[in-house]
Amino acid sequence: MARWEPGAGGRLAEAAMQLYVERGYDETTVADIAQRAGVTARTFFRHFADKREVLFAGSEPLRDALVRAVADAPAAAAPLTAVAAALDASTAFLGRDHAHSRRRQSIIDAHPELQERELIKMARLGAAVAGGLRDRGVTDPEATLAAEAGMVVLRVAFERWVADVEPGDLRALMRETMAALRATAGTAAA
Amino acid sequence: MARWEPGAGGRLAEAAMQLYVERGYDETTVADIAQRAGVTARTFFRHFADKREVLFAGSEPLRDALVRAVADAPAAAAPLTAVAAALDASTAFLGRDHAHSRRRQSIIDAHPELQERELIKMARLGAAVAGGLRDRGVTDPEATLAAEAGMVVLRVAFERWVADVEPGDLRALMRETMAALRATAGTAAA
Repeated sequence: MARWEPGAGGRLAEAAMQLYVERGYDETTVADIAQRAGVTARTFFRHFADKREVLFAGSEPLRDALVRAVADAPAAAAPLTAVAAALDASTAFLGRDHAHSRRRQSIIDAHPELQERELIKMARLGAAVAGGLRDRGVTDPEATLAAEAGMVVLRVAFERWVADVEPGDLRALMRETMAALRATAGTAAA
Repeated sequence: MARWEPGAGGRLAEAAMQLYVERGYDETTVADIAQRAGVTARTFFRHFADKREVLFAGSEPLRDALVRAVADAPAAAAPLTAVAAALDASTAFLGRDHAHSRRRQSIIDAHPELQERELIKMARLGAAVAGGLRDRGVTDPEATLAAEAGMVVLRVAFERWVADVEPGDLRALMRETMAALRATAGTAAA
């Protein structure tokens, strides 16, 4: 059992991931997941809206961490610098368990429905970060541009980290990818 | 009738938009749309998979225009410069009919299901543009970063254009928004 799995919610999440890999996502029911975790279906529904949401339960704490880091960035920090600080902070969540993340990604990659849910999650994270920048006094379009550019960096860095069989340094990848974005965007227009 | 509406497909699209505004998207059926356009439901289904897809039928020509413009950019153009050329080209589609775009946006804004479909459309456009950059020899992560940054610019510029009651210059907004992204990303990291 992964180290981030205490209590019934954690046991349910772990049981769900095991079953999605063993039997496939489509073939797994909430009853299966509850049984594997040793709880009732009612307990499942106290923790998750449905079997899909098990895979996305981490997005609220991630959003809160991003927004908090944007708020805590030095007052003088430029918008994208505040966003970079948020990406650093995100790695405490995203980089916690490489094997789990790889397993989750393989499930999502196999289901367009889950890929769509992931897009929605990323859009909400971007909107929350843009809101955090506005709270710092950044106006639009800069707030949205910096937040969304940051989400692109987060996604690309995370995908690189997950694609690797060995658990690399996600924070280093975030920084490297942010530098690559800055280099790409900094190239003078021809 | 908008000037981009020749033939049964165009009449159906126009009828659908009228009904979505008059009655609401949820309350409109395919039969209603076909009747308003003066064709049979069978004819509707020769043009569109369902009533949702009427709102997204323009995404294939848009994708083709983006990819073609990336391919046609000067060989020496940096990745984001090729993407900027694609955004210029996209305005021939996106900027065609301001009233239509505003109507479409108001329908989408009212339906989370349609907003999700729009996210999927944008993700596919981004993937197509990244593929076009790879065909130019741009490697990852730069190809994905430049393509996705471009999609952020496209979305923000288009939203600004659509939000305006008066039809502004979409190409100028694209260029201005790209410049804002370059400025935001070019700010030295603190």
